[in-house]
Amino acid sequence: MLVVMKPHATQSEIDAVVEKISALGLMPHPIPGAQRVAIGITGNKGALEAELFIFMPGVADAIRVSQPFKLVSREVKEEDTVLDVGGATLGGNAVAVIAGPCSVESKEQVLEAAHGVKRHGATFLRGGAFKPRTSPYEFQGLGEEGLKLLAIAREATGLKVVTEVMDPDDLAMCAEYADVLQVGARNMQNFSLLRKLGALRKPVLLKRGPSATIKEFLMAAEYILANGNYQVALCERGIRTFETMTRNTLDLNAVPVLKSLTHLPVVVDPSHGIGLRKHVPAMARAGIAAGADALIVEVHPCPEKALSDGHQSLAIPEFAALMEQVRVIAGAIGRPL
Amino acid sequence: MLVVMKPHATQSEIDAVVEKISALGLMPHPIPGAQRVAIGITGNKGALEAELFIFMPGVADAIRVSQPFKLVSREVKEEDTVLDVGGATLGGNAVAVIAGPCSVESKEQVLEAAHGVKRHGATFLRGGAFKPRTSPYEFQGLGEEGLKLLAIAREATGLKVVTEVMDPDDLAMCAEYADVLQVGARNMQNFSLLRKLGALRKPVLLKRGPSATIKEFLMAAEYILANGNYQVALCERGIRTFETMTRNTLDLNAVPVLKSLTHLPVVVDPSHGIGLRKHVPAMARAGIAAGADALIVEVHPCPEKALSDGHQSLAIPEFAALMEQVRVIAGAIGRPL
Amino acid sequence: MLVVMKPHATQSEIDAVVEKISALGLMPHPIPGAQRVAIGITGNKGALEAELFIFMPGVADAIRVSQPFKLVSREVKEEDTVLDVGGATLGGNAVAVIAGPCSVESKEQVLEAAHGVKRHGATFLRGGAFKPRTSPYEFQGLGEEGLKLLAIAREATGLKVVTEVMDPDDLAMCAEYADVLQVGARNMQNFSLLRKLGALRKPVLLKRGPSATIKEFLMAAEYILANGNYQVALCERGIRTFETMTRNTLDLNAVPVLKSLTHLPVVVDPSHGIGLRKHVPAMARAGIAAGADALIVEVHPCPEKALSDGHQSLAIPEFAALMEQVRVIAGAIGRPL
Amino acid sequence: MLVVMKPHATQSEIDAVVEKISALGLMPHPIPGAQRVAIGITGNKGALEAELFIFMPGVADAIRVSQPFKLVSREVKEEDTVLDVGGATLGGNAVAVIAGPCSVESKEQVLEAAHGVKRHGATFLRGGAFKPRTSPYEFQGLGEEGLKLLAIAREATGLKVVTEVMDPDDLAMCAEYADVLQVGARNMQNFSLLRKLGALRKPVLLKRGPSATIKEFLMAAEYILANGNYQVALCERGIRTFETMTRNTLDLNAVPVLKSLTHLPVVVDPSHGIGLRKHVPAMARAGIAAGADALIVEVHPCPEKALSDGHQSLAIPEFAALMEQVRVIAGAIGRPL
Repeated sequence: MLVVMKPHATQSEIDAVVEKISALGLMPHPIPGAQRVAIGITGNKGALEAELFIFMPGVADAIRVSQPFKLVSREVKEEDTVLDVGGATLGGNAVAVIAGPCSVESKEQVLEAAHGVKRHGATFLRGGAFKPRTSPYEFQGLGEEGLKLLAIAREATGLKVVTEVMDPDDLAMCAEYADVLQVGARNMQNFSLLRKLGALRKPVLLKRGPSATIKEFLMAAEYILANGNYQVALCERGIRTFETMTRNTLDLNAVPVLKSLTHLPVVVDPSHGIGLRKHVPAMARAGIAAGADALIVEVHPCPEKALSDGHQSLAIPEFAALMEQVRVIAGAIGRPL
Repeated sequence: MLVVMKPHATQSEIDAVVEKISALGLMPHPIPGAQRVAIGITGNKGALEAELFIFMPGVADAIRVSQPFKLVSREVKEEDTVLDVGGATLGGNAVAVIAGPCSVESKEQVLEAAHGVKRHGATFLRGGAFKPRTSPYEFQGLGEEGLKLLAIAREATGLKVVTEVMDPDDLAMCAEYADVLQVGARNMQNFSLLRKLGALRKPVLLKRGPSATIKEFLMAAEYILANGNYQVALCERGIRTFETMTRNTLDLNAVPVLKSLTHLPVVVDPSHGIGLRKHVPAMARAGIAAGADALIVEVHPCPEKALSDGHQSLAIPEFAALMEQVRVIAGAIGRPL
Repeated sequence: MLVVMKPHATQSEIDAVVEKISALGLMPHPIPGAQRVAIGITGNKGALEAELFIFMPGVADAIRVSQPFKLVSREVKEEDTVLDVGGATLGGNAVAVIAGPCSVESKEQVLEAAHGVKRHGATFLRGGAFKPRTSPYEFQGLGEEGLKLLAIAREATGLKVVTEVMDPDDLAMCAEYADVLQVGARNMQNFSLLRKLGALRKPVLLKRGPSATIKEFLMAAEYILANGNYQVALCERGIRTFETMTRNTLDLNAVPVLKSLTHLPVVVDPSHGIGLRKHVPAMARAGIAAGADALIVEVHPCPEKALSDGHQSLAIPEFAALMEQVRVIAGAIGRPL
Repeated sequence: MLVVMKPHATQSEIDAVVEKISALGLMPHPIPGAQRVAIGITGNKGALEAELFIFMPGVADAIRVSQPFKLVSREVKEEDTVLDVGGATLGGNAVAVIAGPCSVESKEQVLEAAHGVKRHGATFLRGGAFKPRTSPYEFQGLGEEGLKLLAIAREATGLKVVTEVMDPDDLAMCAEYADVLQVGARNMQNFSLLRKLGALRKPVLLKRGPSATIKEFLMAAEYILANGNYQVALCERGIRTFETMTRNTLDLNAVPVLKSLTHLPVVVDPSHGIGLRKHVPAMARAGIAAGADALIVEVHPCPEKALSDGHQSLAIPEFAALMEQVRVIAGAIGRPL
């Protein structure tokens, strides 16, 4: 259920609703909007009676939410959520770009990548310190050393740092160094990790699992919001299909569908989505044209020497050319970069 | 094998190569290019020796083709194939738009649709007279009556007619009324139909099967070319995946991959690709941004009353708005509409 | 709608119902059962009123059918359909085995295969004369010559012949030589072919398309029944998934689901279902344990030399060993071979 | 690389090889077999030279392993791994059955289920205390209270307890109460959890992820073995496909493929594999016929009242009937229950 307050409801009227929800043994989620406050209710087993709330002062309406997802739903919050990450934004009208290497490999590499992507318009730096690899015998990332290098790159460039957290034990450490914590596709339904991220109140970039439906994707985000963290962005990065010529099948259908169902920002990852360096720019353009709020792109100073994902990483000049195209496409639909 | 002639090879030099191929019991496929002629060879079981041809006058090279598809491959013909359909083109730098109703329902409906899409920039009219329906109890199309109405609409508007042929028995009839014959997704591997279209020498729009790999898609086109018809366009219309919120999963990855593998024009069908009217424009934009040469869009004067696919058809004002966006996106990557 | 007659309804009572249905402009499908006759009605757009029939003499009930498929449904006909092919049966309690080479290659090959599979208990001979191949450059079958060889093998062994028909133009020819006409997976939704098979009244083995849902599979069979041919068997032969270690993913879930939804016999094809010779016996056993009524297995006198599908064909001694296992598994669930 | 010792190699010869591997900075994995010991080597970046080992006393051979998975491979260990769980075995010739409720709900429920499944031949009790649910608002399990009830049921029946661990923080607690720790499908590539289970040395039942390839499934098991725990069983529980009539698509192809690639026991879960109570027995029979070493089946004293998965749980009389069938099918291929 969602209790929608009148535009000029007072704080004490809002507080009264929150208290009543708590008194019923349920959990209130006040969601401030540009016009008015709405209060989501979770924790109820069956349907709640609207009569419990609609006669309270300052309440405009109490509506049942028809989807299984609640807090992530546009029915609950109509306006776009904009993540404000120390001044850099994700969501809203402007298109943001997150770029950087798959793995952090060395100070030189990460600094060169960071300066390169900053120069051409990225506002976030991506880079993995903990790498989920199919094989236990492959490079697993530099760990804390990698996090420190990312922090150095942030200091040098002003870019905000996005990095993946795999293990709940590393959560505090990652949160210390990073600005946005990424949940990898394989961990999309690692519910214990999601719950802990909900408690942490640090922006989260949640990647869609390779075989997750859009509904499951939204429910995974719901785990984070239901635990109190509303700063979540959703990333489409390709699903698993029968096609083998491309690494994944980038499901751009998901972009307009998600944008209509949820207020959370939607990010597209063309690098994993197609997995072929020469075709990444085409899919980045298509992602923006489909309505994505941001891109996350793998960029490496020297893709041929990358320890992971070199086959899908752009060199800095390729990234520069891509940014030109993205700027034009975004402009064509009225969005600044 | 592909025999590449020198830029200024004479016709008699070309003929000599063709004759030698025939004399070997194989099939020659001369492919004229802007610079020079190449001659594809099909019908061989194993690899051929380059020595058979490289010492002949006018021959520049004889190269083995590494892919299982030959005549559709860019290795065999580097320049884009442009279908010239009585003056309207499909392929090349300009972006084309095919639009119209799912099914032809009445003279009023098809004329209204045709005038509407023509007014906003379409150059081809789509419309089904024979409809492949999952159930034998659903509307199966008007048959020849529908074809006649399409011809009337062509006369009235100058639009070229694209319509699906399902049954080889109807091939001659469809060819009489239509300008481009469409092979539906379910018939992509109906090899007897493909062979007959190869013999017919009428432009073909081949739709990708819902579970066809890109390689199988190209091999299906190869059936048409190998039987002598080089006028083929390929249409990505969504593949079948586990996602159920959308009718299909539009595989835009296939666009840049196809454009790099084949010289044939690539068309995107956002209507079937997502199956949700309100999201068709986003996917049409994305298709163009990904590099498609054309769009095929379902448009109906009154989608609410359509006998088929009303839920994914645009009304004419929606189509008009879409064309504005497509024009801008195409322009952003240097392509006129 | 299904009109269910009383157990002892007279022929003239049945005729009266049939006439009334025809008079309404609909199509009656009388379906004789062991206990009583039911009459399926197709051709209606909306729901029919039960009152139209329930007061007529001899009528027990008139029930609306809830599924989109009607004539194939167990709601319409409760007892198993048993195909009687000149004495050999498909369906019912006994388990049948169809075996033979992928392609007919020569008289020696087909006779050796036929005698081999007959000796170990097969009652049907499979063999392709027209082969649907992904590439136009691969072996396409011997055509009519192949059909003649199959007929010779039938004469020599008494096995009934199952062969694929690809082209409606070949239908009459195939029907002349074969006992059961197979529709290949790629043609499952070739509706013009299905309609013609409906008119032909020859038993049909319909293979599930690689990306067809169970519902679409049943609707494809419905096309054949709705056109008047009730002699149809359904064959699960593997669906397309993301797994690449096996040729297809044999969907044995479909066996009990189909058996509960339809009265038609269900056949399992372990050869295409897994595509790996050494694992065919395990999947054949599993198919029978899941409740299939028959198996269709590729057997070649010398798989190493097969012109097609050698990697998934059993040699005759392997087939002999498989039949031993199948006999025991079938017996374990009370079914003779 | 795998160093294979001679049948009668002494312990000191084995130790010398182990020391040499360690001295090279690599990790030795001695694998005792019935005939002889083999020593797997992991941690090398490129290929190793066989000459490093083949001249050492007691060494029969040093062979390169061709698959990306090593320790789980039959190339490394030919004989079946049999998990010995306090006397109850999983793997080897006898077929084992794990049965019990989806979730532990109460003492009465778990005891009734345990006594019921024990009476009909199960040797392991399954039951969830921590439940991974798509929605944060669904029943999440009883937690430690559930583990205690499972331990009580073990005491009462002698059944060994299998339960899922979701959160690394709960690992020690789960390990204290359970005999076998289950990794759920959604966590198959939760590499930090896998590493910790590798260090724990408690038997693990690893479920295949819904979109995991067979290769990825084996690589996930490899993470556990590479960290030192060789007591792992693999469970096929259905993959995600386009089919919607069944909950998942049980991929029984995976059974013979896994049995040929790995020495680890293979378990089939027909309950999740088809998700329809009335069809669970057919798929359980098929799983055994395909060669599975064990079944894991959801059984509830009253499926209609289950807090989770009631639609796919068997009542105890249904389980009893299933066990009769399984016993006969297993016997048909020479395996006792």
